[in-house]
Amino acid sequence: MRQSKLFSKIRKEIPKDEVSKNAQLLIRGGFIYKEMAGVYVLLPLGIRVIENIKQIVREEMNALGGQELLMTTLQRKELWEETDRWDDKKVDVWFKSRLKNDVEIGFGWSHEEPITKMLINYIESFRDLPVYVYQFQNKLRNELRAKSGIMRGREFIMKDLYSYSRTEEDHKLFYDSVIEAYHRIFRRLGIGEDTFLTFASGGAFTQFSHEFQTITDAGEDVVYVDRRKKIAINEEVFTDDVTQQLNLDRNNLEKVKASESGNIFSFGGKKCEDLGLLYTDKDGKKKPVILGSYGLGITRLMGIIVEKLSDEKGMIWPEEIAPYRAHIIALGEQKDEQVQKISEEIYTAFGEEKALLDDRDVRAGEKFAEADFLGLPLRIVVSKRSLSEGGVEVKLRTEKESKIIPLEEIKKLL
Amino acid sequence: MRQSKLFSKIRKEIPKDEVSKNAQLLIRGGFIYKEMAGVYVLLPLGIRVIENIKQIVREEMNALGGQELLMTTLQRKELWEETDRWDDKKVDVWFKSRLKNDVEIGFGWSHEEPITKMLINYIESFRDLPVYVYQFQNKLRNELRAKSGIMRGREFIMKDLYSYSRTEEDHKLFYDSVIEAYHRIFRRLGIGEDTFLTFASGGAFTQFSHEFQTITDAGEDVVYVDRRKKIAINEEVFTDDVTQQLNLDRNNLEKVKASESGNIFSFGGKKCEDLGLLYTDKDGKKKPVILGSYGLGITRLMGIIVEKLSDEKGMIWPEEIAPYRAHIIALGEQKDEQVQKISEEIYTAFGEEKALLDDRDVRAGEKFAEADFLGLPLRIVVSKRSLSEGGVEVKLRTEKESKIIPLEEIKKLL
Repeated sequence: MRQSKLFSKIRKEIPKDEVSKNAQLLIRGGFIYKEMAGVYVLLPLGIRVIENIKQIVREEMNALGGQELLMTTLQRKELWEETDRWDDKKVDVWFKSRLKNDVEIGFGWSHEEPITKMLINYIESFRDLPVYVYQFQNKLRNELRAKSGIMRGREFIMKDLYSYSRTEEDHKLFYDSVIEAYHRIFRRLGIGEDTFLTFASGGAFTQFSHEFQTITDAGEDVVYVDRRKKIAINEEVFTDDVTQQLNLDRNNLEKVKASESGNIFSFGGKKCEDLGLLYTDKDGKKKPVILGSYGLGITRLMGIIVEKLSDEKGMIWPEEIAPYRAHIIALGEQKDEQVQKISEEIYTAFGEEKALLDDRDVRAGEKFAEADFLGLPLRIVVSKRSLSEGGVEVKLRTEKESKIIPLEEIKKLL
Repeated sequence: MRQSKLFSKIRKEIPKDEVSKNAQLLIRGGFIYKEMAGVYVLLPLGIRVIENIKQIVREEMNALGGQELLMTTLQRKELWEETDRWDDKKVDVWFKSRLKNDVEIGFGWSHEEPITKMLINYIESFRDLPVYVYQFQNKLRNELRAKSGIMRGREFIMKDLYSYSRTEEDHKLFYDSVIEAYHRIFRRLGIGEDTFLTFASGGAFTQFSHEFQTITDAGEDVVYVDRRKKIAINEEVFTDDVTQQLNLDRNNLEKVKASESGNIFSFGGKKCEDLGLLYTDKDGKKKPVILGSYGLGITRLMGIIVEKLSDEKGMIWPEEIAPYRAHIIALGEQKDEQVQKISEEIYTAFGEEKALLDDRDVRAGEKFAEADFLGLPLRIVVSKRSLSEGGVEVKLRTEKESKIIPLEEIKKLL
């Protein structure tokens, strides 16, 4: 992409109505635009990051045997009444409206109910199990307060995976494989070091539920982390009893602020029983399917990554999710034919999908400051000086020093 | 993908509540699932087709200089009041609801207003123009009646492109380049032959508007087509006067049923003026930006393609958008080691993203019938007989005869 063509421009002013670092940086950088409180447009740079995060998650979900689908935003009332989750007193984040014939409908804030109900049409016997399905869905939630920038919104993209298993044992095996997949995802997103499987308060079926918490000052939760064992306990269930039960030593636990970056949940057979999703087992008996659900807030993850991986100069995007891998900066290029020619050649070598070419007629200092602010992994400066020194100046966003690389070695960077 | 793992199964029964061929075939094939009237889930096969269509459209939009973004479903009332399109009497497809603080909000049925309003923040001078932006958006429309299967729904995926140009001349050039891009898209989708640029009734600024109409019996419109000149006239503006004006001969015009497969629209400067999107021109004067909008119904296109490209045996997917390129059918594979080994090898050679392997323990006749029904472009049958005849049996879905291809020549098919 040529930066001269990118309609979003980098702003110096901090948006007045945003207190969170993630929203401030992402708005200033032209990744997102605030439509209303808790509702953000994904601008060209932002949608590229989101698609990259989705692709990592998609690969890991497919590797588990997950089948991608896309449920609907519009939701039928009757469906949610079957599990008693239509009533605003039971679920307080519904947006609702009416069809022309006055039938009440809801807007999808979660999708366990419709997916489970749908699968009645596809699951009859034990031979049809297991089924693992997932989607990237635009969730709508009528939150009382939207806060923390894109980390908690009224409209956001979520990956939700659902597992339908024959037995509790099968379920447990898959559940554990999702935990491993989530760890891989967080590592690929660059936040693996600081993300922990966390024990939180359980539901009707289990003493604990599991969530993933990423250490960040912007977090809304407090957790106690054992860094060596890669395990944490949410403050809400933090007692001596629980610590002992999990075989953790209180002295090794560190109290930190953290943000929930994922959650996984076992429903047992209750939800499928309520909705009528039963299968005929080998013994000829009808049994409820065992359900698990596994969420990852995709836009939320972009926020967490910005909170964690930024410095005083701006954002720092990990290689796999950066909107572009390389930022090619042509200095004074309007005036110098050689600089222009070589920067264009490098841009072509990377390809417009991998590189952002700063071809604007702007002074060097501003180009450098903006490149640091945007935070692409690799900066390549082409100038008369660099050429006179024998090549181009290359610097990683995570490093301080740049070095001159001869032109013939650029292909090693591709 | 292994067909034994695909949770959606092919059904023989025609769904009772669907009259349109596209919905009947797509539901039976496991491409879509009906959540409610006019609201369909995209199942694994369906989402693959949709993503393929999106990718074709994305490539063509990027080639025009389009920048992808993603607007929001939640919409602010004030924005739409500025162009007098909030009132249900003016726009009768709004879904509306309220935030917790009782502020009324709408759900996006169109996005000219929010995109234009947003761009006030990014466009100041003639130097910032042109801007071309597009998105793939889940549109919600409270239609009185949902009909024609996925060709007209209450929830559907649309590509909408918006052009912001400095002058009418610049606008016209881009507008014409979109027409060319649309023709390329329809050709790549396999419906180019029967899709026509069509003159329809104009708006406030032009005598005509342009739409693209694809000839199909399932169409809701009637158009008069000049096949040689690749132009059509919508019935609504079909007069001798218009025919003459467009330099068409009435004798060369064929009256056909057609379905609107795309539309393009010029707004002049009115919309931007209403919303306050002005730029400072070279002469120092403030002028409204010239707006064009260009729609393509992505899910609708899947419906049109099914309507047009199916036969008595089932669907026929064009190469570029088929959910999988090859359908590898192993016959009696449970019993024959050699058949199993070779079908697995071919499956691996294609890769699980390109091939569907029918590894089910099902009789041959059913496998063939289902393969025809699903309509993947290339069918490869591995059986004891084919192996004894020297290879595997290969057939295109569009052809009647199969032929035996030696194993060593399979790589030519990849």
